[in-house]
Amino acid sequence: MTANGDGGGKGRAQVKPQLLSGFRDFLPAQMLLRQQVMAILREVFERHGYEPLDTPALEYAATLTGKYGEDEKLLYRFTDHGGREVGLRYDLTVPLARVAALHANELVLPFKRYHIAPVWRGDRPQRGRFREFYQCDVDTVGSPSMLADAEAIATVTDALTALGFPEFTIQINDRRIITGLAKLAGVADDQAGQVYRSIDKIEKIGPGGVRAELIERGVAADSADRVLDLVTMCGSDAEVLAALRGRAAGFPDVVAGADDLERLLGFLGGLGVSRENYTLQLSMVRGLDYYTGPVFEIAVERPKVGSIGGGGRYDGLIGSFSGRDVPATGFAIGLERVFEVIAEFGLLPPIRTVSQVLVAIMRGAEDDGVADALALVSELRAAGLRAEVYLNERRSLRDQLSYADRKGVPLVAIVGEDERESGQVKVRTLANREDRLVPRGAVAETILGLVGRGVGSRE
Amino acid sequence: MTANGDGGGKGRAQVKPQLLSGFRDFLPAQMLLRQQVMAILREVFERHGYEPLDTPALEYAATLTGKYGEDEKLLYRFTDHGGREVGLRYDLTVPLARVAALHANELVLPFKRYHIAPVWRGDRPQRGRFREFYQCDVDTVGSPSMLADAEAIATVTDALTALGFPEFTIQINDRRIITGLAKLAGVADDQAGQVYRSIDKIEKIGPGGVRAELIERGVAADSADRVLDLVTMCGSDAEVLAALRGRAAGFPDVVAGADDLERLLGFLGGLGVSRENYTLQLSMVRGLDYYTGPVFEIAVERPKVGSIGGGGRYDGLIGSFSGRDVPATGFAIGLERVFEVIAEFGLLPPIRTVSQVLVAIMRGAEDDGVADALALVSELRAAGLRAEVYLNERRSLRDQLSYADRKGVPLVAIVGEDERESGQVKVRTLANREDRLVPRGAVAETILGLVGRGVGSRE
Repeated sequence: MTANGDGGGKGRAQVKPQLLSGFRDFLPAQMLLRQQVMAILREVFERHGYEPLDTPALEYAATLTGKYGEDEKLLYRFTDHGGREVGLRYDLTVPLARVAALHANELVLPFKRYHIAPVWRGDRPQRGRFREFYQCDVDTVGSPSMLADAEAIATVTDALTALGFPEFTIQINDRRIITGLAKLAGVADDQAGQVYRSIDKIEKIGPGGVRAELIERGVAADSADRVLDLVTMCGSDAEVLAALRGRAAGFPDVVAGADDLERLLGFLGGLGVSRENYTLQLSMVRGLDYYTGPVFEIAVERPKVGSIGGGGRYDGLIGSFSGRDVPATGFAIGLERVFEVIAEFGLLPPIRTVSQVLVAIMRGAEDDGVADALALVSELRAAGLRAEVYLNERRSLRDQLSYADRKGVPLVAIVGEDERESGQVKVRTLANREDRLVPRGAVAETILGLVGRGVGSRE
Repeated sequence: MTANGDGGGKGRAQVKPQLLSGFRDFLPAQMLLRQQVMAILREVFERHGYEPLDTPALEYAATLTGKYGEDEKLLYRFTDHGGREVGLRYDLTVPLARVAALHANELVLPFKRYHIAPVWRGDRPQRGRFREFYQCDVDTVGSPSMLADAEAIATVTDALTALGFPEFTIQINDRRIITGLAKLAGVADDQAGQVYRSIDKIEKIGPGGVRAELIERGVAADSADRVLDLVTMCGSDAEVLAALRGRAAGFPDVVAGADDLERLLGFLGGLGVSRENYTLQLSMVRGLDYYTGPVFEIAVERPKVGSIGGGGRYDGLIGSFSGRDVPATGFAIGLERVFEVIAEFGLLPPIRTVSQVLVAIMRGAEDDGVADALALVSELRAAGLRAEVYLNERRSLRDQLSYADRKGVPLVAIVGEDERESGQVKVRTLANREDRLVPRGAVAETILGLVGRGVGSRE
C-alpha cells in the first residue's frame, strides 16, 4: 500500500484539470529560461543602484482606479470577504506611488527601486497577450532631474544589451509636447484625442494615412497638415527641438518639454547609451493617463511584437496619494515580449534540466543497492554538484537510463556488481554513451571535471 | 517645470494610501534579505535535482475546492469578468496536482519540482499570520517509493541547515496511523475528529490534559487511555513501530503505514540526515484533507512560532483531476516563519543597500560636473561594481554624502576642483571618513579592492 492512498482518486468527484484562459503554467525548461533572464535583469538593475521592492498582488480598488484612462476596464476587480472593493495590481507603477506615499518617512530620496513581478489584466487573450504577465520596472522617486530619466533609459539599454538583443530603439517623446501638438495645430479640444491616436499609427500607415484619417474624423485639412509637419520634422535632435521651440512660443509647456528632452538626450551619451539605441520621436504617444513629462517606448523590428516596454515621468501620481507632489520617473519592460525576442533570435541557450548527474540504483547480490546510491549522491551534492538518485528502487537500469535521457540529465553514475567489487564507479556520458571507470574516491572530482568542461552544462 | 507635472496631485481627487490588512510591502532591506534566503533555498533545491515550476495566481475555484477540509472557508474566491468562479491559489500542492494531470504527456516521471511563490488565504491577520505569504515547496510526482519522501525530508533538512538554523525537528507520522488510532482504541467514528484534534495538542497540554479533554468530549475513559498509550509509546523508532504493528493486527492500513515509516526512516541516514533533526511522533496530526501516507511537520523551540512547514504523501490528489492515480509526496516551508527564526537568531547579516559606491556630482568652474560623474559611474559599472550617481545635479556635496550615509552606501567617489586639476579622484569610506586620493585611471581597481576586503560588502 503506497501508490493508492485511502483518499485516492477513485473515491472522489473528478475535476477537469484546466487553466483559466490567458493564464499559463511554466514547466521547468521554461522556468529555467525565465529565471536566467530575470537574474540577468536583476544584476543589471542592481549594478545601476536600483534596489528590490515588492508589493501585494491585491490592492484596494480605490488605489488602482483613475490612473489608467480608458484601459481601466481591464482591471481585475472584486469584493473580498470583508466587503472591501479590491483589485489585482494592473502595473507596478501605481503600487510604487502608493508605497512612496505610505512609507514616505522610511524612504531615502531619491529612491531607486526595481520590481520584477506579475501583473493582471482582464484583457482578451490572444497571441502574446496574457491576463497574467511579468513586468520588470526600474523607477526613481524624488528626483525632478532628467538624470533620473536618463538613468532609466541607460539601465534598460544595458539590460537589453546584456540579454543579447541584436537591435532595439528607445523612442523618446514628452507628454507635454504630445498634448501641445493639437493646440499648436489649432485642433479643437474635443478632437485632440483623435489626433493622438492617429499620429501614433504613423509608422504603420504613413503620414498620408494619418492625414486621411484625421480629415475623415473631422479635423480641418490645414490643421492636419500642421500636425504632420510638426511630428515629421527632420534634422538632428537639437535642430528638431529648436524648430519645435520656435513654433511653440506661446506654449510654455511645450517649450519646457523640449528643454527637458534636450537635457535628457545630453545625459544619455555620458551614460554610454549608444546613439543607435534611441531616437527622438515626436509622433510616439504613450496612453497611460499618469505621465507628465518625458515618455519612452522600446521598439524592435523583429519579431513584430509591438512595444517591448515603455515608461516615462509621472510627477503627479504620488501626489494623488499623499497630496504632496513628489517627482518620479521610470521604465517598464514586458517580460513576455522579451521572451519572444529571445526565441526569435535564439539568444540564450535552452536549459533542459537542473540535474548534472543521476545516480542509478543497482540491486546487489545481497542488498537492494539503495545504501550505496544514497551515499554516492550525498557525496556528489556535498561537492556542490546538482545530483539526484532515481526515486524508485525497484526499477531496472534501462528505466533509469531512459529517465535520464528523456529528462536531459547529461551524466549517470552506476555502481553495478563488477564496479562494487573493484571499488569503482562507472560514469556514463549520455550524449555519446561514453563510459569511464573511476575509483570510488575520485567520482566527485571526475564529474566536477566533466561538468567544468561543459559536459554537465545546462545546455 | 519638472517637479510639478500638469497632471499633478493638486488637480486630482486624493486617495488615502493604504495596504489591505494582512498584506505587506517589502522595502529594499527586507527584500534583499528575502532574495538572499530564496537564493539559498533555490540552490539547495536544485542541488537535490528539484526543478522550478510556476503556476498562475488564479485557478478555477473548482480546482481548489474540496481539498483543504474545514480550512477551505479561507479560500479567496470571486467571480471574474467572464462569470467564471475563480480563486487565488491557497497552496502550491493542489496547483501541482492540476499541472501533473493537465501536462501528463509532457512530464518525465518521477517529476521533481520546487516552487517558491506567494499563496493567499482570507485568514484573520495576526502576529506572524498574513493573507499573502510565500511558500517554498519541493515535491515528487510519480514515485510510490519512500525514497521520494526521504528526499523531501533530506532537502528540507539541508535547506534549514544552509540557512544556519541552530535547531529544528522534523516530526514524522503517517496519515493511516492517525486514522487508525481512533479505531484501534475503539472510539466511535463520529468522535474520531475530536481524538485527532486533542492528541495534536499533547506537547502543549500534556497527556493528562489530552485525557481530560477527550473524556470531557464524551470519549470513554478506557478508549482515551488506549489512545494515549499508543501515541506515547517509548523506545527506538523500530521498537515503537514494532509495538504498533503488534497491536494493529486487524488494521492493514496501520501496518502499511508502520512499514512505510520504517523504510522512510531507514533512508534518512543514507541521505545524511542527522538523527537530531527528525523524530517519529505518533501524536503529530496534519490537518489537510489530501494526505494519504507519511506526514511531516517542522518544529522549532525558539521562537514560539508553531510549525515552520510540513508536508506528506498525497497519492490520491492527482487522481482527483486525471482519474488515474499517480503517487506524489512533498514538503512545504513557510517562508514567513523562516524569517522569524532568522531574525530571532540573527542568522544572516542584514543588507542595507545594493549600492557599493556613490559618485558625487561636483560643480566645476566651467561646467556642472555631470559629464565627469557620468563617465566615472559608467566606468565603475563596466568594472562590475554596483554604482550610482546622485540623481540631482543641483545638490550640494553635503546633501549627497548625507544620502549615502542614510542609505548605507559604503563608498563615495568625489571629483572636486582640486582632484580634477591633479587628475585624481577622492574615494571616501563613509564608515570611518577615511579619504584616499587615487589616480583617475585606478579608481575602479581601488574600489574593487576595497569591496573585496569587505568595505563595500552589503553588510
